Amino acid sequence: MNLLLLDPAQIQNQRASITDARRLAHIREHLKLNPGDLIKVGQKNGLKGTARIESITEQQLVLDSVLLDQAPPAKLPLTLIVALPRPKVLRRLIMDAVTLGVEQLILIHSYRVEKSYWQTPFLQQLDSYIELGLEQAGDTIWPQVQCFKRFRPFVEDILPGLIENKLAFVAHPYAAQPMPVALNQPCILAIGPEGGFIPFEINLLQHNGCQPASLGQRILRTETAVSSIIGRMFG
Amino acid sequence: MNLLLLDPAQIQNQRASITDARRLAHIREHLKLNPGDLIKVGQKNGLKGTARIESITEQQLVLDSVLLDQAPPAKLPLTLIVALPRPKVLRRLIMDAVTLGVEQLILIHSYRVEKSYWQTPFLQQLDSYIELGLEQAGDTIWPQVQCFKRFRPFVEDILPGLIENKLAFVAHPYAAQPMPVALNQPCILAIGPEGGFIPFEINLLQHNGCQPASLGQRILRTETAVSSIIGRMFG
Repeated sequence: MNLLLLDPAQIQNQRASITDARRLAHIREHLKLNPGDLIKVGQKNGLKGTARIESITEQQLVLDSVLLDQAPPAKLPLTLIVALPRPKVLRRLIMDAVTLGVEQLILIHSYRVEKSYWQTPFLQQLDSYIELGLEQAGDTIWPQVQCFKRFRPFVEDILPGLIENKLAFVAHPYAAQPMPVALNQPCILAIGPEGGFIPFEINLLQHNGCQPASLGQRILRTETAVSSIIGRMFG
Repeated sequence: MNLLLLDPAQIQNQRASITDARRLAHIREHLKLNPGDLIKVGQKNGLKGTARIESITEQQLVLDSVLLDQAPPAKLPLTLIVALPRPKVLRRLIMDAVTLGVEQLILIHSYRVEKSYWQTPFLQQLDSYIELGLEQAGDTIWPQVQCFKRFRPFVEDILPGLIENKLAFVAHPYAAQPMPVALNQPCILAIGPEGGFIPFEINLLQHNGCQPASLGQRILRTETAVSSIIGRMFG
């Protein structure tokens, strides 16, 4: 945790307090902070800065001298579209995408996504995964996250509006063109499930504005592909 | 698993068999392959290709028509030096580095690495993590993996010989120069532990040939940093 996120309503007269067990344990046992120490804080969807620890117990952390004077890091102008991964991968994927600065994240269905994945209780916890990603990055701004449980209506009715005049790519092992390097401009990136999008899906994505682009001969796990492509596109 | 790795001694007269439970379960339950189906295979540290499933039971897979006629994907000319991560992160880190094609991987001690991490039984299983990474990537060539439990002797006595005439970088949040983009040449990359290398370590790395290079304002987890930097350097 590289930033303690505070609700705007929690901060009054440069003072704030938190009581949740996860963050208290992390600050006490991992960061090993004591009264008088400074801690990096951020206001949710606002500025970041520092605060001083006035007191800390197993039940409560009280902060004073809350000073919010720095802008959070800029987001990447990237809309990341990912086929819903296995539940145990979902948490890391969301965290990583948020940490890397993805502005908009869209989870979609695809032929090779097991329907049962949409029933996972993890999908009810997206907000907590986003918070973990922001805490890691030192960011305060919530990205937009949406889910679309039907592939074709998403690609035909929603995707063209997202793309507008931007470049859009779908990672595809057999594409002729390579994924662009140091693109550094607003774009859309679609990444398939384990086993990849099926040919029908690649064709539909292509007809609706996504250029297939290859990552070379190596087949990457979804999470590895996300981090690697973002590193490559936004260098 | 995108490739079934076979020992050279297992392949005779274009036939081979495996009996280990992990891969049998994966091929039966996940890939759902049956007798007559083709499967992608590779000879450890050799060529890759296909084989036909002659029979498959819970105890044994028998292959015939083993045909090895393709070169594995090229490795990246990268020596990755990483401070030993928490045991639960180690497996994913090794897998990801191997999947991405790292040629040489070196785990080192650092001030912020807990000494207990060196006692983890996971360090005895590096070979199985490498195998998982190769299976994922569709690669057959074992990278070189080494461990150095003392930071200073490694940096002063070993590192200069590794660097020779190559470029070498250490990821450091406060560096003035950014990590290079699309470097695409042999290089050395050092990545610190959670919390980063301490100033003494950064200085020692710098004096021994590693240029500090920044990844921008966002603080990434080790695994995310590895995938993202590799994507950025070898686009």
